[in-house]
Amino acid sequence: MKRIMLVVAYDGTNYAGWQKQPNGVSIEEKLNEAISAQFGTPIEVIGASRTDSGVHSSGNIAVFDAETQMPAEKVCYALNSRLPADIVVRESREVPADFHPRHVECAKIYEYRIYCAAHPDPMKVRYSYFVHNSLDVDAMKKAAAFFVGEHDFAGFCSAGSQARTTVRTIYAADVRATDEHEIVIRICGNGFLYNMVRIIAGTLIKVGMHSIAPNEIEGIIASKERTLAGPTAPAQGLRLVEIIYNDLEARISNARNDIFDAK
Amino acid sequence: MKRIMLVVAYDGTNYAGWQKQPNGVSIEEKLNEAISAQFGTPIEVIGASRTDSGVHSSGNIAVFDAETQMPAEKVCYALNSRLPADIVVRESREVPADFHPRHVECAKIYEYRIYCAAHPDPMKVRYSYFVHNSLDVDAMKKAAAFFVGEHDFAGFCSAGSQARTTVRTIYAADVRATDEHEIVIRICGNGFLYNMVRIIAGTLIKVGMHSIAPNEIEGIIASKERTLAGPTAPAQGLRLVEIIYNDLEARISNARNDIFDAK
Repeated sequence: MKRIMLVVAYDGTNYAGWQKQPNGVSIEEKLNEAISAQFGTPIEVIGASRTDSGVHSSGNIAVFDAETQMPAEKVCYALNSRLPADIVVRESREVPADFHPRHVECAKIYEYRIYCAAHPDPMKVRYSYFVHNSLDVDAMKKAAAFFVGEHDFAGFCSAGSQARTTVRTIYAADVRATDEHEIVIRICGNGFLYNMVRIIAGTLIKVGMHSIAPNEIEGIIASKERTLAGPTAPAQGLRLVEIIYNDLEARISNARNDIFDAK
Repeated sequence: MKRIMLVVAYDGTNYAGWQKQPNGVSIEEKLNEAISAQFGTPIEVIGASRTDSGVHSSGNIAVFDAETQMPAEKVCYALNSRLPADIVVRESREVPADFHPRHVECAKIYEYRIYCAAHPDPMKVRYSYFVHNSLDVDAMKKAAAFFVGEHDFAGFCSAGSQARTTVRTIYAADVRATDEHEIVIRICGNGFLYNMVRIIAGTLIKVGMHSIAPNEIEGIIASKERTLAGPTAPAQGLRLVEIIYNDLEARISNARNDIFDAK
């Protein structure tokens, strides 16, 4: 028996999220179908991050156990031939039999993309949030820095969260304009509450519009009041970039230096 | 009566192309519906470029006549509220009553995007052609230069073309890697035959794979033999970037200097 880890990328537009849902097709279901068909027996994956409906990923993690002679590194090719075009297994490898992707220390990098222009770009609408206003990127950068550190993020969490504690550590957070119209927020932390990145993005967008000043962020976090933070930014702008398990300290240090080039 | 020009961007994935088709919905039809509903009378646009099924655009041109008090510059906002999210009118303005977008001198810029990696990226598959091999971008750049000038492109044209002549002038053609995985071909010319850009892209990809040498391009063009050129690259990689009517000489000169920044 092998425990195999998959690095999974997907366009979340047409899915009800990662986790199996009573209505709507989930990423997890599509993976389970492909893996079960490949190995000829019902198999269910354990996912690292239960991304919401419409959220994208370039590197979510899933593990499963299979009795197979196939080298773990080849499993990605076999699965991709069975998966729809909007779900791609980028990598597969064997991990220890007790590896559980939600029970080990890790860092997650999320990205939120905003497209600012007079009109939306039809080739960006699936992967970014269209904002009619232009945003003050420098103010957003200053504001983002206040999220770094260990904080109680109770005010940055939607109702329905089942987290035992609302304390999380943010290792790095930054904002940059990638071209004339696109602004990208990146954030790296040891874990995120329900909708936390989307509420941080919604808050930074209000900073970019000058409705919230950068130095108000500290007080908004301390207040633990959901109503003081910005709105939950829409799902299509959000992307889970990567989940880091190996070389954790070095990778976090790289993210602190430059989260946009955090190799 | 006003003649109004629209600059139209679209994600062509879900359309049967620009032009009305017996089966499948076209971009033109969606525009006609929105414009007719807006002005309360049946109106049909005249399009500049009849892009194929699955081909994208960031700046196709359409004109129509309407009896309206609405300032031409505001028409884009009214139409966008009636159009689906994958078609966006980026700009609208009044043009002379005799302006016909296919009967005046212009230059068109097309782009072809290639994604080279071990596995496809689910967030790129709609807008680029996935190639499993890595490609030699320098060889592709050298090959692209041979397309520049006035040539008979009879060998770079699919059957079914109704063009009176197969001679076209290419003002600029270049290739660059925009990141580790993405290669972009850009080409600017006074007109293109049926499938011409996709056949040039398919030929440049063969150059990138070292199946054709850059200096063979001259002979392939001169042969006028479709079978000597590369295959027709798939539609989803192609995008009509812009159609240039104003400041034609200056804009062509800019494209010759740097077609990737041809303002």
